[in-house]
Amino acid sequence: MPELTPGQYEIVYNMLSLAIACMFASFVFFVLVRNEIAERYRGSIVASALVVFIAGYHYFRIFNSWDAAYHLSDTGSYVPTGIPFNHAYRYVDWILTVPLLMVELVLVLGLPRNETASLLFKLVIASFFMIALGYPGEVDKASMSVFSNRGLWGFLSTIFFTYILITLIVQIRAAMARTSPQIGVLLRNTGLLTLFTWGFYPIAFMGPFYGLTGGSAEVFLQSGYSLADIFAKCGYGLMIYNICVLRTEEAATLKAR
Amino acid sequence: MPELTPGQYEIVYNMLSLAIACMFASFVFFVLVRNEIAERYRGSIVASALVVFIAGYHYFRIFNSWDAAYHLSDTGSYVPTGIPFNHAYRYVDWILTVPLLMVELVLVLGLPRNETASLLFKLVIASFFMIALGYPGEVDKASMSVFSNRGLWGFLSTIFFTYILITLIVQIRAAMARTSPQIGVLLRNTGLLTLFTWGFYPIAFMGPFYGLTGGSAEVFLQSGYSLADIFAKCGYGLMIYNICVLRTEEAATLKAR
Repeated sequence: MPELTPGQYEIVYNMLSLAIACMFASFVFFVLVRNEIAERYRGSIVASALVVFIAGYHYFRIFNSWDAAYHLSDTGSYVPTGIPFNHAYRYVDWILTVPLLMVELVLVLGLPRNETASLLFKLVIASFFMIALGYPGEVDKASMSVFSNRGLWGFLSTIFFTYILITLIVQIRAAMARTSPQIGVLLRNTGLLTLFTWGFYPIAFMGPFYGLTGGSAEVFLQSGYSLADIFAKCGYGLMIYNICVLRTEEAATLKAR
Repeated sequence: MPELTPGQYEIVYNMLSLAIACMFASFVFFVLVRNEIAERYRGSIVASALVVFIAGYHYFRIFNSWDAAYHLSDTGSYVPTGIPFNHAYRYVDWILTVPLLMVELVLVLGLPRNETASLLFKLVIASFFMIALGYPGEVDKASMSVFSNRGLWGFLSTIFFTYILITLIVQIRAAMARTSPQIGVLLRNTGLLTLFTWGFYPIAFMGPFYGLTGGSAEVFLQSGYSLADIFAKCGYGLMIYNICVLRTEEAATLKAR
């Protein structure tokens, strides 16, 4: 780990703490509101609650790992203690939470039950490979060019990343055509949020290829991952919650007729 | 951090612990009573629960940071350990909780749904700027006069602070005209509580401008912030809860007619 100024160290420290607060507060929120949602869509809220619970746990671990990896030197800068910062927490988190993020969205698309199951099966398998293939590249800190181990693993992972995003876009467009304009807008915005937040991960992964190394790079990566995770988990969960509220109202109106 | 007498150190230590107890006890209260409240106003109680949960987490962190920042010397006074006390926790807390405090109040004003959404949008944006612009001033410990960086950031932050308070007063007065005298009194008192508790923050922020530095100043600030937070979060949440109870009774009476 590179040496850091107090300002650099504290940005990451506080971003990690912010992520813990956001994840667990979102968990409380999803637990408190789940019964307002029609049974058919409640699975989405339960999945949202699990995602932020798992992420809250991992951010707690990442925070402690960051805290243990550095100590304040006599000269006033933060120097590595030698205890390694554990990069694996993020990947372990993603391998559990990304399939659940797929569940959240697919359950509000309003597909027939058998189509829901087969779509989810494909997306869950693809997300497993996307994350598992990315990890060997992430930990290969020696790779500094695209034509390296990091580049190769990144490329393999991106195949599944692209497959997932294209599938989601196709499914969201189809769902928009089937539903009210109000729900359609929310579905489209959820798709856009996914594109923008997920887009950060490959940019961060490729960091070393365009010379992003040292203290400021580490700060950029750790804060960027944390912010992207807050939007991709808490923000995304809130969008899905809003879709569930509208779907529940829609179902109540249909019943009342 | 300045050297402190045991008495000074313990006042802050115990105030921080009091805040943890108040926040988590209020959290339990709001979770336990939320189902008594009519669905239309239940969002207020959920927001209250989230506010005190997030604040409870941050007070836990602030307490640990205070504990780590000092140790008892052989001469019997508390001297800084060199581990910096993290001032950022309060700001991270406010950036999450202040928008939620707006949600609590706006949902009980009894506005039509579209007006609620647009009012909340403006207030949430304003509270983001109020807090984000205050932070650079807060950490600038070198500024000792109004005409300094601290003064400038404070001024910029105050523009949004004033906007929020004026908007809330206008909205509360309008809501008082629409509702029963009983609910009106509670709305007015909630407004007054907001004015008095929020008023403490700029006084504390300007501390260095009127020579409030050293040990007793730190004790005044930390205890003051903690007390203001207890009233502005737990006390305010209880006022909102009372309004929700009356609103629920009102809705039941209207239905029964």
